Amino acid sequence: MTAYEIILKKRDKQELTKNEIKMLVDDYTAGKIPDYQMSAFLMAVYFAGMNFRETTDLTIAMRDSGTVIDLSMIPGKKVDKHSTGGVGDKISLILAPLAASLGVIVPMISGRGLGHTGGTLDKLESIPGFNIGLSISQFQQTLKDIGVCMIGQTAEIAPADKKLYALRDVTGTVESIPLISASIMSKKLAEGIDALVLDVKVGNGAFMKSFERAAELAKNLISIGENSGKSVIALLTNMDEPLGKAVGNWIEMRESIETLRGDGPDDLVELTAAFSAYMLILAKPELTYEEAYFRSKANLKNGRAYEKFLEIVQRHGGDTDILADLDGYPKTKHAIPITAKSDGFVLSINCLEVGMAGVLIGAGRRTKEDAIDYSSGIMIHKKVGDRVIEGEILATVYTSIDDQLESACQKIEQAYEIGFNAPDKKPLILAVMDRNGFRDMG
Amino acid sequence: MTAYEIILKKRDKQELTKNEIKMLVDDYTAGKIPDYQMSAFLMAVYFAGMNFRETTDLTIAMRDSGTVIDLSMIPGKKVDKHSTGGVGDKISLILAPLAASLGVIVPMISGRGLGHTGGTLDKLESIPGFNIGLSISQFQQTLKDIGVCMIGQTAEIAPADKKLYALRDVTGTVESIPLISASIMSKKLAEGIDALVLDVKVGNGAFMKSFERAAELAKNLISIGENSGKSVIALLTNMDEPLGKAVGNWIEMRESIETLRGDGPDDLVELTAAFSAYMLILAKPELTYEEAYFRSKANLKNGRAYEKFLEIVQRHGGDTDILADLDGYPKTKHAIPITAKSDGFVLSINCLEVGMAGVLIGAGRRTKEDAIDYSSGIMIHKKVGDRVIEGEILATVYTSIDDQLESACQKIEQAYEIGFNAPDKKPLILAVMDRNGFRDMG
Repeated sequence: MTAYEIILKKRDKQELTKNEIKMLVDDYTAGKIPDYQMSAFLMAVYFAGMNFRETTDLTIAMRDSGTVIDLSMIPGKKVDKHSTGGVGDKISLILAPLAASLGVIVPMISGRGLGHTGGTLDKLESIPGFNIGLSISQFQQTLKDIGVCMIGQTAEIAPADKKLYALRDVTGTVESIPLISASIMSKKLAEGIDALVLDVKVGNGAFMKSFERAAELAKNLISIGENSGKSVIALLTNMDEPLGKAVGNWIEMRESIETLRGDGPDDLVELTAAFSAYMLILAKPELTYEEAYFRSKANLKNGRAYEKFLEIVQRHGGDTDILADLDGYPKTKHAIPITAKSDGFVLSINCLEVGMAGVLIGAGRRTKEDAIDYSSGIMIHKKVGDRVIEGEILATVYTSIDDQLESACQKIEQAYEIGFNAPDKKPLILAVMDRNGFRDMG
Repeated sequence: MTAYEIILKKRDKQELTKNEIKMLVDDYTAGKIPDYQMSAFLMAVYFAGMNFRETTDLTIAMRDSGTVIDLSMIPGKKVDKHSTGGVGDKISLILAPLAASLGVIVPMISGRGLGHTGGTLDKLESIPGFNIGLSISQFQQTLKDIGVCMIGQTAEIAPADKKLYALRDVTGTVESIPLISASIMSKKLAEGIDALVLDVKVGNGAFMKSFERAAELAKNLISIGENSGKSVIALLTNMDEPLGKAVGNWIEMRESIETLRGDGPDDLVELTAAFSAYMLILAKPELTYEEAYFRSKANLKNGRAYEKFLEIVQRHGGDTDILADLDGYPKTKHAIPITAKSDGFVLSINCLEVGMAGVLIGAGRRTKEDAIDYSSGIMIHKKVGDRVIEGEILATVYTSIDDQLESACQKIEQAYEIGFNAPDKKPLILAVMDRNGFRDMG
């Protein structure tokens, strides 16, 4: 079978064999199949789909394009969390030390922000000196020593995904559930984890706009993971407004530090504690969810999660002095208040607009080569359901970059929809799924 | 609009504007859009389709990527014929001189063979010295002088099509009616013709396997042509067995010469005369089809068509001595008879297998770079409906190339289906279509 014949077969809606998929992934990674054939194949998959067996084989072939990390020498359950990406989503920054403080081993491999969504790595790097580029052996050693390590994807992990993702990004083939599933799970299966908690975001700030599509993706991700012997739980969470108040890099890190010190915004605390509880019951199945949730909340209050965070920062070479004096961080030139044009309730906040405003002020990147201004960001003072009066400050835009500041402020203004009647607020967690389907949320 | 946004729009089944299509074609031709984006776009068109307006705009944009030849200085109607490609399809070799001998101006720009189908240019070049690479001004002068010229596509004509076709060929995006239509018509509209007769082949040896798909393609081609002020007639013809007896290059040329001398096989004579008659009534609408058909048959018998053929060969620098002594052409090393394994009737001949056998013995090419052995070919002695007895010769394989000869012979053997009951024979011409739809064939 040549790449050409495999394209024709998928185009004609036939099922590909395991060998055909493996050949395609291996030869593409080795540079033997040109980009123009692979992009035609990806578009054929977008239209013709892949069944579950094909998606699993694609995931395994992509995983096996690189190193599969061995963490078996470390005792205890290794549990990671993955988010499909949102705006103001700083959960990982708090969750990794929190779950580790409860005895879960957390081997966390994260990504950078792209487009309107932020990335854990950029937020970590807003702490001066923080090194996310550890080698696999340093990663293993750190996990052994402190029970948690937060790094970026290395060249050794799923190189096929790296190459395929870059191609999908410029050929309109990102939004395909089999391709998204294989991309996420190939990397997670290479990490050496025992279990995984997924945050599948739904809403105007998420890749999945509808609950149904998000549930379909979650089902796929869970099945692929369980098929490879990993326990997987997925939370479908609301992304119709930014999470917490801060959107940016350092300002999200600062909000995370405050949360780790027991002083976080309600939505962020509640959601992070829920993720921590699910990670904990995956690691220690003898616990009930309620016990696990209680312990998670407690460790945010009693300083243990923050202590573990300090260990992480020290271990990764980050500057802990700045943590002692948060106000000592470089200030931005501008702090522009965005005010309400009328009285009423905040009906909605368009996360896509907020995220794109972040890109305009240098908090995010349009292309992978763009540099980040760590201090830039947007503070959301009024959230969905809040009552506002004309002239009151809805949000503040922080940046030192002038050239697109006006459009950024306009975007924030337009992101807010204000009306007369108080809106119904969606729950933070829309659904919980595991291998048996939807879980009863009690 | 960027190429990326145009891919997304087509992927999401939206209609593209004229400007979007023009931008895509112009920028791709200029090398500003990479192949991997264009191949994703082509696959999106394969699945999402294009409406008639989009297909026409694509055709015009591709036509305008190069020179549009001006033939207005030559008096008389300029009529060309195009075939979608078949096996043993040597009609153009006979038709061009025949129609020209009847006073039609025939500016014929042809292609090479690829895959299982043969190409007019390769057959012409089997005559030693025949030069198909005339410039556009030589083309114009030849047409003025002898009323007919047969050349290959030059770099000036529809360069966008050349680049797009090469990409489609390796990315599984050939079989799309809007893309096929634009490819054919962009070149034909650049030729400076007044009218066009199309041979849309249907059957096991054609790109269009079903009558419905062929009729859809014909309707598209006719509409695009008529929209640009050209008169177009399409014949849907049967390609469930090779046309005539010879399949190859020189052996097809030889059969064509014999036909021009009044001694051709019935199916070839009948179909060529029909095409000539349609070209003639497009050039001289005062004639009835019956008169035009009668004149065409007469000029195959009275030597006038052959005389015009000699003029063409002389004008293109071809060796006319070989025409005087057809047996003087280089002989092949092998002449392998393929015999019937049982008594019965020939029920069908798989043209695809015959064409691919031709590729194996060097009569066709797998890739554009392959060289042709002009002497190689297959002579089909028994056609569909013929009665055969065990041991009787069905076909003869001529070649000097040894290495895949056995597989080629096997393919020919397998191409023949022999059974007990005489099959119903399909008519040569399945339907005739013009801008008003199907014509009454009387």
